[in-house]
Amino acid sequence: MSLPRPMLDALAELLPAEDLLTEAGDCWTYGYDNSKRHAPPDAVAFPREHDQIVALVRLCNEHRVPITPRGRGTGTTGATVPLRGGLVLSLERMDRIIRVDPDNRLLIAQPGVTNLAVQQAAAEHGFFWPPDPTSAAACTLGGNLAYNSAGPRAVKYGTPRENTLGLRAVTGAGDSIRTGVMTTKGVVGYDLTRLIIGSEGTLAIITEAALKLTPKPAAKRTLQAVYADMTAAAHAVAAIMAQPVVPCALEFIDGAAIEMIRSYSKAELPAAAGALLMIEVDGAPASLDEAVGEVMRAADVEGCLSAKVAGSQQEVEALWATRKALSPALRTVAPKKINEDVVVPVSHIPSLIDGLRTLGRRHDITIVNFGHAGNGNIHVNLLIDPDDPRQAAAAEACLQEVFELVLSLEGTLSGEHGIGLVKRDFVSLEIDAATLALMRGIKHEFDPLGLLNPDKALPGAAT
Amino acid sequence: MSLPRPMLDALAELLPAEDLLTEAGDCWTYGYDNSKRHAPPDAVAFPREHDQIVALVRLCNEHRVPITPRGRGTGTTGATVPLRGGLVLSLERMDRIIRVDPDNRLLIAQPGVTNLAVQQAAAEHGFFWPPDPTSAAACTLGGNLAYNSAGPRAVKYGTPRENTLGLRAVTGAGDSIRTGVMTTKGVVGYDLTRLIIGSEGTLAIITEAALKLTPKPAAKRTLQAVYADMTAAAHAVAAIMAQPVVPCALEFIDGAAIEMIRSYSKAELPAAAGALLMIEVDGAPASLDEAVGEVMRAADVEGCLSAKVAGSQQEVEALWATRKALSPALRTVAPKKINEDVVVPVSHIPSLIDGLRTLGRRHDITIVNFGHAGNGNIHVNLLIDPDDPRQAAAAEACLQEVFELVLSLEGTLSGEHGIGLVKRDFVSLEIDAATLALMRGIKHEFDPLGLLNPDKALPGAAT
Repeated sequence: MSLPRPMLDALAELLPAEDLLTEAGDCWTYGYDNSKRHAPPDAVAFPREHDQIVALVRLCNEHRVPITPRGRGTGTTGATVPLRGGLVLSLERMDRIIRVDPDNRLLIAQPGVTNLAVQQAAAEHGFFWPPDPTSAAACTLGGNLAYNSAGPRAVKYGTPRENTLGLRAVTGAGDSIRTGVMTTKGVVGYDLTRLIIGSEGTLAIITEAALKLTPKPAAKRTLQAVYADMTAAAHAVAAIMAQPVVPCALEFIDGAAIEMIRSYSKAELPAAAGALLMIEVDGAPASLDEAVGEVMRAADVEGCLSAKVAGSQQEVEALWATRKALSPALRTVAPKKINEDVVVPVSHIPSLIDGLRTLGRRHDITIVNFGHAGNGNIHVNLLIDPDDPRQAAAAEACLQEVFELVLSLEGTLSGEHGIGLVKRDFVSLEIDAATLALMRGIKHEFDPLGLLNPDKALPGAAT
Repeated sequence: MSLPRPMLDALAELLPAEDLLTEAGDCWTYGYDNSKRHAPPDAVAFPREHDQIVALVRLCNEHRVPITPRGRGTGTTGATVPLRGGLVLSLERMDRIIRVDPDNRLLIAQPGVTNLAVQQAAAEHGFFWPPDPTSAAACTLGGNLAYNSAGPRAVKYGTPRENTLGLRAVTGAGDSIRTGVMTTKGVVGYDLTRLIIGSEGTLAIITEAALKLTPKPAAKRTLQAVYADMTAAAHAVAAIMAQPVVPCALEFIDGAAIEMIRSYSKAELPAAAGALLMIEVDGAPASLDEAVGEVMRAADVEGCLSAKVAGSQQEVEALWATRKALSPALRTVAPKKINEDVVVPVSHIPSLIDGLRTLGRRHDITIVNFGHAGNGNIHVNLLIDPDDPRQAAAAEACLQEVFELVLSLEGTLSGEHGIGLVKRDFVSLEIDAATLALMRGIKHEFDPLGLLNPDKALPGAAT
């Protein structure tokens, strides 16, 4: 589509020239996200205020123009790719931290602020905000809320849904709403805060968020445990999660990933290593010895080959180097790999890993797994070249079976990456028709004309 | 209303005689809850299975008969009083614990099981479910979820919204839905789990819930700190909440409440006591000394008259005796007192208490405050006799000003009791018209005919 002249004129009235792009070449970049998918927007607006967003959304309603809100485009599912063109709302210039209130453990910020900036503002007062995606330095708060993005710390401290008090937002109809409270308890009205979090910008555009802060623990220890195979490691995960000391990170790497690291980096690992856990425990300094001891005892299941606690910051970095060697190694082997982030209950991780091995063999695809074991959130990497039609077809067939396996193990298709456009055809494998119909009805209440990020999050008939 | 003959016949087909009441005298009791409000139901059904509820809701849709789901009636807001008669669905016979899965830290149960039974089943495996309302021995899981009921532990461990993974439910239209996941992460589809939690049975009837369990801490210490006045105590609360050791209970009692205890019980308190904090700290035994030390240091603000840690179980009981003496004392003075459960950000507690004192003087009403200070959740007790028209009028005027004060302090009208029918006229003080309209739209999607618990939770035009 291209925008009607009256709409272009109205945009130019609403926004100063430096906050609006309408030339195709200028707009091009804002058609991408980190899924590498692309569709060109017709215009890109950079609002700086809530009221501008209200006006922009109402204008789009008047002209029936789709609106795609976005942050910095670090998402991996194409959720911010403007499939139908129209207006992209880039929220990157709404990047103010409005209030840091340590007495009340809260921070209020606009959506365009980066996760890192939130952490820095909180840290000045001895606090942090738990969600910690790998892209923290670049990704925005609005994106974190749109996807319910988590990271390693979620195992102890939860996701954005557990760490957000309230929102200010603009619905798809252009109405200003406020959700939630400024307190850690509140039961007046329905919980629209959590409904909007994770809805991938399909219900409302968040213009302000009140975040719940957590005091920074005084100390942290890092452990690495190596296992003969993934089954042993998964039993250790279940044992660790069944005792009272909850680690603040419980990451795992499977045997194929260890092979990968061994081939492509100098990180040292025992020869028989079939799986590896990276564990972090935080808390008050005096309690850490005991806490680490409890975790070490739980980690020491049959098949545990070695377990060690880093004694210095250098050792911590050496331990994490193993984990960090993985992504470059995977990119070397398969630059366009498929990375899914399925979740299963912790005790089903061994069955998942076994099943994935079988599927990899059957479809002749190398599958490498790592991820947030404490949440059962496994990053499943299919090392294929999607530009090779045979491999692409094999991957498609394999992916369908991966998702069926995950669901048969009481799991879910995504733990933190979301649906966007790349997974939407699989959603109805997980969510039944009646529940999906209800979600579509809710979408309709927020966005009667279906203009807000159409074709995302929910399957086919969604808009 | 009275039920049409074909509906009564259909009910008798759907349910065995022992699971159905239709005689007015038999039904009477099921028209009450702990608000002491009453309206007589036309029939009471005691379903035992999800599919029976589907059939009952569809039958009510067919005959346009209101449905009021209820647990054990311990709610205080009239949320289960069947204002328009019709069918009461008493879920007390759906009381099975379906699965306890310690490896995955989850428990699946039906709504009629008591909170206590959930705790006992979890405790067998070393776990607990954090929500702990005072009525735990009698109140049901379904009620806890309907109100998002919390209790003292919420300050550290959160409310049902932070401790529930997924639900099975029947919408007002009679559709079976499943929400959420069996894992601690999941971002597929919209978050209907939290939307239904706290919706007071106005959106859907919960028939099964997957609860997130937490490992029981190995040890706990109880502290009591006494302050010259409420301002000093509130500063202590803010200081305690700003350091890393989060107490598992942080309760307070104001000066008027202390006077009350002194007059009506033998609990010992220093003469100059203007406010009191009861604090509990849990964790691993080795860490407790340090943790208690941190909390004691934070609690020791200007105006702290004394602070002590209970050295034995008897001492713990002695400390809690003070807190527990309060309710009987209040009941002695004002059997029909009004008890609100407002919330303000922690640092605004002193302003709230000061403002309440002024309001009490202006309206000639004794106001006694206690509650969950760590969450800013204050139980405001207006000691009046509602049967005295002058006092009732004063209370009404005072209550309106209490709520305005709370909102001016960035607070919310209810932290855990909910809205029910008694607070619904005040909801629009807190939630703006556009947001309320959206909530009503969502209600309509779940319950197109407006039959599910009508006239509750949302104000006037809600159904």
